[in-house]
Amino acid sequence: MVRYRIYIEYDGSAFCGWQRQASDIDFTEWLRLFYDRKSDKTPPKHLSSVQSLIEFAIFRVTHQIVTVEGAGRTDAGVHALAQCAHFDLQEYIDTDRLQAGLNYYIQNWGASILKIEVVPSDFHARFSAISRSYEYHIVNRRAPLSLDRLRAWHVAPLLNITEMQKAAHLLLGFHNFNAFRSAECQSKNPCRTLDSFDLEQDQEHIIARITARSFLHNQVRIMMGTLVLIGKGRMPAEQITTLLENQDRTQSGPTAPPYGLYLKQVCY
Amino acid sequence: MVRYRIYIEYDGSAFCGWQRQASDIDFTEWLRLFYDRKSDKTPPKHLSSVQSLIEFAIFRVTHQIVTVEGAGRTDAGVHALAQCAHFDLQEYIDTDRLQAGLNYYIQNWGASILKIEVVPSDFHARFSAISRSYEYHIVNRRAPLSLDRLRAWHVAPLLNITEMQKAAHLLLGFHNFNAFRSAECQSKNPCRTLDSFDLEQDQEHIIARITARSFLHNQVRIMMGTLVLIGKGRMPAEQITTLLENQDRTQSGPTAPPYGLYLKQVCY
Repeated sequence: MVRYRIYIEYDGSAFCGWQRQASDIDFTEWLRLFYDRKSDKTPPKHLSSVQSLIEFAIFRVTHQIVTVEGAGRTDAGVHALAQCAHFDLQEYIDTDRLQAGLNYYIQNWGASILKIEVVPSDFHARFSAISRSYEYHIVNRRAPLSLDRLRAWHVAPLLNITEMQKAAHLLLGFHNFNAFRSAECQSKNPCRTLDSFDLEQDQEHIIARITARSFLHNQVRIMMGTLVLIGKGRMPAEQITTLLENQDRTQSGPTAPPYGLYLKQVCY
Repeated sequence: MVRYRIYIEYDGSAFCGWQRQASDIDFTEWLRLFYDRKSDKTPPKHLSSVQSLIEFAIFRVTHQIVTVEGAGRTDAGVHALAQCAHFDLQEYIDTDRLQAGLNYYIQNWGASILKIEVVPSDFHARFSAISRSYEYHIVNRRAPLSLDRLRAWHVAPLLNITEMQKAAHLLLGFHNFNAFRSAECQSKNPCRTLDSFDLEQDQEHIIARITARSFLHNQVRIMMGTLVLIGKGRMPAEQITTLLENQDRTQSGPTAPPYGLYLKQVCY
């Protein structure tokens, strides 16, 4: 067996998320859609998971049924600049040929394999990761979005970036992030260490850059929803300290929309 | 009569271009589509022109049938960060209310009104313009595009940016640009003055920024197609001088795809 690591870019609005769903379509259905849609320049919307699309492509290229394990399970609508994943093949295939073959099957669907490498067989995309970086994009202006539609969160009221930066700074380090995870989060341990959380503003565009070893379910989106509340002046930045202490999800902000979120990098 | 100037952002891949076509749909058809599609998050593809969409929205808000005159006629697929246009209404309407009303009708279609101002009645979006700026986006990497699909030109072979910059520099100033305009260009005068043409590279992303008082039909796209030929090493940069002298379209490069092009700014 040979283990491969792949780096994948995808437009989250074309998928129901990274992870295969019970309702996901099978190889036969993918194949029918592939030949139906090959000439269509527009990727289909919300057809299936990224994981099952890549498994379909691997099956077409190698005739092997494999499971592709991703580093992070991005939700529907969440984009990836470089998601990481691994899978095993029975024998070595030239990585350039494999990349070209997989991209042939996935490129019209809103996903693209950026790189393929052979890795040791004990490498695991999820468990070997030592850090994950995300970006969150906000467009802060009155007019609705057209070019950034489904690529950024549109926030109309003027945001106070200085207060948001103060709040981001208070979230840094080791904390119980129970107030910043979804009710469905299955992690037993609500404690995480936030390594960096920077906000950059360029006119109407605000980009947040966030790094940690791992995150709780919806943690980045709830932190962003809370920061936007603070930026609107509807919560003081110092409230973050209280939220980290009382660990009450009902007192933090709403979950920010998925389409502003980008999985940027996974480090090993 | 009150003359209004509007600034419009749009995703060119959702339209057949700026200019109304003979085959364009009428107000009744727009209305039917509007109510059909209002709940749909995905803008329709290649339905109609930006011009007729805005005229439809003005009709819905004011019950007046007007002609919207744009500063530049962008082709199908070409995006705008801030296209400019003007139109006349019978009486003054508060610009904030007008903007909100127009955006209500157009925002789910891939277009957005960024700003509305009242201007003197001799203002003309096209003829009063003193300069136009465009950006052209290239992604130079082997892997196909997913997030930048229909937002940039994908060029796989490694480009020599230094040679491309040399070529761009040779195009600056007053020249006969006959070798850099489409066969359908209707301008009697093939001479133009190129004020600036800068290329910026950030890893795999290359952005060209180009400014002139006005451009010939497809001029930016043919200049970019020629620069990419030079970047690939298939034409020496110095060849630009020959092209400007012999004015032969058959010897310049191909027309670069429309979806890499952005109308960035119109100055008055």
